[in-house]
Amino acid sequence: MPFSLAPQTSADGVTEQSFTLGEIPGVLFTPQDATGPRPLILMGHGGGQHKKAPGVLAGAHRFAAEGGFAVAAIDAPHHGDRPKDERFLRFAGDMRARMAAGEDPAELVSAMHDLLAGQAVADWQAVLTALQGLDHVGAGPVGYWGVSMGCGLGLPLLAAEPRIGAAVLGLLGVHGLAATAARVTVPVQFLLQWDDTRVPRDRALALFDALGSADKTLHANPGDHGETPAFETGHALQFFTRHLGMRSDASREDTGNSLL
Amino acid sequence: MPFSLAPQTSADGVTEQSFTLGEIPGVLFTPQDATGPRPLILMGHGGGQHKKAPGVLAGAHRFAAEGGFAVAAIDAPHHGDRPKDERFLRFAGDMRARMAAGEDPAELVSAMHDLLAGQAVADWQAVLTALQGLDHVGAGPVGYWGVSMGCGLGLPLLAAEPRIGAAVLGLLGVHGLAATAARVTVPVQFLLQWDDTRVPRDRALALFDALGSADKTLHANPGDHGETPAFETGHALQFFTRHLGMRSDASREDTGNSLL
Repeated sequence: MPFSLAPQTSADGVTEQSFTLGEIPGVLFTPQDATGPRPLILMGHGGGQHKKAPGVLAGAHRFAAEGGFAVAAIDAPHHGDRPKDERFLRFAGDMRARMAAGEDPAELVSAMHDLLAGQAVADWQAVLTALQGLDHVGAGPVGYWGVSMGCGLGLPLLAAEPRIGAAVLGLLGVHGLAATAARVTVPVQFLLQWDDTRVPRDRALALFDALGSADKTLHANPGDHGETPAFETGHALQFFTRHLGMRSDASREDTGNSLL
Repeated sequence: MPFSLAPQTSADGVTEQSFTLGEIPGVLFTPQDATGPRPLILMGHGGGQHKKAPGVLAGAHRFAAEGGFAVAAIDAPHHGDRPKDERFLRFAGDMRARMAAGEDPAELVSAMHDLLAGQAVADWQAVLTALQGLDHVGAGPVGYWGVSMGCGLGLPLLAAEPRIGAAVLGLLGVHGLAATAARVTVPVQFLLQWDDTRVPRDRALALFDALGSADKTLHANPGDHGETPAFETGHALQFFTRHLGMRSDASREDTGNSLL
């Protein structure tokens, strides 16, 4: 697929480069003036969001500025700058109507993720290959960050893609994912919101339980679906630092900053 | 009560001073050559352990060396260097026998903690007052760290003692503690072992749920009761740093070290 990378724009010590790979729009975040290979973190956004949603941007800037990582985010199929086809629009409308009518959202959310997962996994695998060809990324360790839909599309990616060595996931229940989660064996940090009105607590605990990883850690905090505390971004940075490695100077100096 | 502090012995940048307050034997850990006030962390050991049990020592040295904290550990009633009276010995023997006979351990563990809690709370309150009179401790912010029995005796302490502003707890179930936990309102980091053969998962989750704290975070990891991963000591250090404050130079430099 044709791969084009836009000129760089920098802010807060982070360089952003928009890119397109075939029909896939994405953005690459790297430390300003970065040269040479570095660990890469792929970030999957939530349902209805896009590659520059606030939660993605906040994490991407800290992972790059404080951790020295390269970070890539792309629009999921039918999200952000990508075209939405008739089938997707019908499905989404039908989903909203059935949720409003009181149907179990887990069933509908799972069906939506199934609709997108095949394309999403193929997209990430192609993007990963393209990004690893860049001098300031390289073929080093790779991590994945994604919660809610980013977890629902991330689990099939992790089950299929051996280049990804660690993941931060969560804010999703086990519905339809138990078998896929069991095939995930890399270290996982799993986020759960104790008062999540969209994801029943027992189903989220069951998804953590279903992960095949020997090294997995659950972080649960009070609050609803969208209320994960900001300090969890610091814990995610430390988790990726432990498992993907990074410049020790960046880790020592900047991880400290990120905790206070 | 008479308070006596032994001469200092130092290792790895940490100064240890044994002390006795009345009948209570304890040890105070401070950064080597520490002068002036600093936040204080009280550490409660597990059942059958003592003030210098490996888990306590490991945390105390990191909290002092990397965080700049003062750290105090004491022997719980009938533990360590303290006399065990007839009633306690009978109770402990009876407890072992009933556990061996297959009785619900939660019932017996809860009864043991009830037997010790009143004295343990009074001990900690007196020790806290004595330590806050020392020049290199002072009357600054105070935290508490204790898991298993250290949690069972720590919850009544936190419910009774307003000088303690944050706590790391866990490895215990809700049995007999729901009302006490509801009276705890300070920030809590709660440790849970996903495969704990002594504490049923649902009861540990119920104790986390019962905490009255608006700011509480659950960290669950795979493994049995005694298998909490070492990186949780780093998370505890960061938690106390966030909530009790510390020397920013120590926090920046040393929190980084503690993560890698």
